[in-house]
Amino acid sequence: MTLHLAVAASLIPASRIRVATLFKAHRQQPDDLPLRLVLDACGLPDRTADAVLATADALLAAGQSSGIIPIPWFDPAYPALLDCIPDPPPVLWVRGDPAVLRKPAVAIVGSRAATEYARQVARRLGAELAGQGMVVTSGLARGADSAAHAGALDAAGLTVAVLGCGPDRVYPAEHAELARAIGRDGALVSELGPGAPPLPEHFPLRNRIISGLSLAVVVVEASEKSGSLITARCAAEQGRDVMAVPGSVLSGRNRGSHSLLKDGAKIVETAEDILDGLGWATARATPTPSPSRTTDPVLARMEQGERYRLDDLIEATGLAGSRLLTRLTELELQGKVTSAGGLFGRAPFA
Amino acid sequence: MTLHLAVAASLIPASRIRVATLFKAHRQQPDDLPLRLVLDACGLPDRTADAVLATADALLAAGQSSGIIPIPWFDPAYPALLDCIPDPPPVLWVRGDPAVLRKPAVAIVGSRAATEYARQVARRLGAELAGQGMVVTSGLARGADSAAHAGALDAAGLTVAVLGCGPDRVYPAEHAELARAIGRDGALVSELGPGAPPLPEHFPLRNRIISGLSLAVVVVEASEKSGSLITARCAAEQGRDVMAVPGSVLSGRNRGSHSLLKDGAKIVETAEDILDGLGWATARATPTPSPSRTTDPVLARMEQGERYRLDDLIEATGLAGSRLLTRLTELELQGKVTSAGGLFGRAPFA
Repeated sequence: MTLHLAVAASLIPASRIRVATLFKAHRQQPDDLPLRLVLDACGLPDRTADAVLATADALLAAGQSSGIIPIPWFDPAYPALLDCIPDPPPVLWVRGDPAVLRKPAVAIVGSRAATEYARQVARRLGAELAGQGMVVTSGLARGADSAAHAGALDAAGLTVAVLGCGPDRVYPAEHAELARAIGRDGALVSELGPGAPPLPEHFPLRNRIISGLSLAVVVVEASEKSGSLITARCAAEQGRDVMAVPGSVLSGRNRGSHSLLKDGAKIVETAEDILDGLGWATARATPTPSPSRTTDPVLARMEQGERYRLDDLIEATGLAGSRLLTRLTELELQGKVTSAGGLFGRAPFA
Repeated sequence: MTLHLAVAASLIPASRIRVATLFKAHRQQPDDLPLRLVLDACGLPDRTADAVLATADALLAAGQSSGIIPIPWFDPAYPALLDCIPDPPPVLWVRGDPAVLRKPAVAIVGSRAATEYARQVARRLGAELAGQGMVVTSGLARGADSAAHAGALDAAGLTVAVLGCGPDRVYPAEHAELARAIGRDGALVSELGPGAPPLPEHFPLRNRIISGLSLAVVVVEASEKSGSLITARCAAEQGRDVMAVPGSVLSGRNRGSHSLLKDGAKIVETAEDILDGLGWATARATPTPSPSRTTDPVLARMEQGERYRLDDLIEATGLAGSRLLTRLTELELQGKVTSAGGLFGRAPFA
């Protein structure tokens, strides 16, 4: 699967799940997957191919001229966590540093019409998480989202904005300066190529990428109809931790968050609650000694030279998906595990 | 065990658990338990008996003249729930209607230095619970406690105040009018007889009676050192439900409540949450009608048990592909549609 083909595949209308399913089936030999097969699977005639490929050419040219980097599925730079979801986008367009997308991240999302309370909490959590080396993912929306990004920047940390338009555009426009600051060391990403407008239907789909890039989703102030609940549900379906910040029971503005808590979401007061929930070793004074090869329950199940799907490792280790992902991410950061194309393996000599 | 003896036993210093244990051992033949045995168990000389019995006489006389009713253990009027705890008081002094103590009750307790938020929540919960026929138990303290009592009275419901002094006294004094209103249809109770002063050491012991009289304890705004956490711990030890109302994570005033939630306490927004948690049938007038299956234009075209290709649904609904897929994704997120292998179907019962 070439970059050109991945971009073309991403353009086929109404094909999200089908293309992903086809991709996953060709995981072992991605280069053998011709565009014709993708079109077939989507019930589209072969002659569509030319139009799609031409648009792909135009998008790639537009990306090049605007500095937006396309990362196709199967590319080693494609974020391993996102690769694990049922419907990863065929290509991820990135403005900023793509390497940020492979670092451990937590999403903070919440109400657009956020109260001062929610904005304060989101900003504080963003700063605390970023201060602990965690990337803060969010959606660049008004209210809680932008406060979370701003918090990460307060702490001189890294943050990733997932957009419902092309990464060369900014929505809402008032966040142009924030977007610039995010892109300086972090990244703005989208499954939509350069120039794509922020249509309403893009945002629910965008939410699966916010959660897909993250070890956990933390909801700050969500009413019963909040879009943040879609992100939380995506997270749950993707095996990621769902967490929520409590608030007033009188205003009705936290009814969605509280219903997540009723359903078993972890209650969050501080970033420590989030990191504890992930089993993430915080930057505490004493470094944890590196576990020997046989003591780490994940490494112990991985043979040198073999590649494993996440599902295989869940089965082999008996760990929950989010816990396993956290551990794999840690091991990858320690250079003990490598991942590519949704497959995890022991790093040489690990 | 006569009333006289129970009152005497209640006066033996530092004997709470020992007396209760002895009482429980004599549950079948309570009348066979002489005061001498109780004194023995407490390591007190026999000659103490005369002094203790004399004080008991004086208390019974004081109770009679002030209308405070003593209910000894083994009395059919003794509250059944309180009887179940490890250390029920030998006698319960009651001002008001003792029958109230045998009705189902929920305790609402919280911070004395309560915020306006906590007072509002406690009052609303008190009113809602009392409106559903539940007795509201609390401690007559400033802040959340008195708001809970006041809420029950707002709803013309029943409420019980458990005191850290004799039931003929009121502490704090500013609650004299509230106490009178509580005693009109409800009750003020104490394990301490008429005239007992509100000593600080009485209050932690009082808390076990608040929870002991109740099916559940609901904590409204408790900091890390709040006395309400003692009541919550008593409730847990007594096998009662512990519930807590969430609030701001910024003020520090809810740290105790949130730590209860972290430990598995049920999160409470409304009285319905409390009653649901108890499995208590609420007095709902009309069951909500289940939404009709035909209202959603996409769902309306899908037969239960059938699987559809996207193209079939485009044709059937007349919707554009991208619009339809967005809708299907929403429905899938709502659990109303399932998809597999590129085919969409109604979820069971959707």
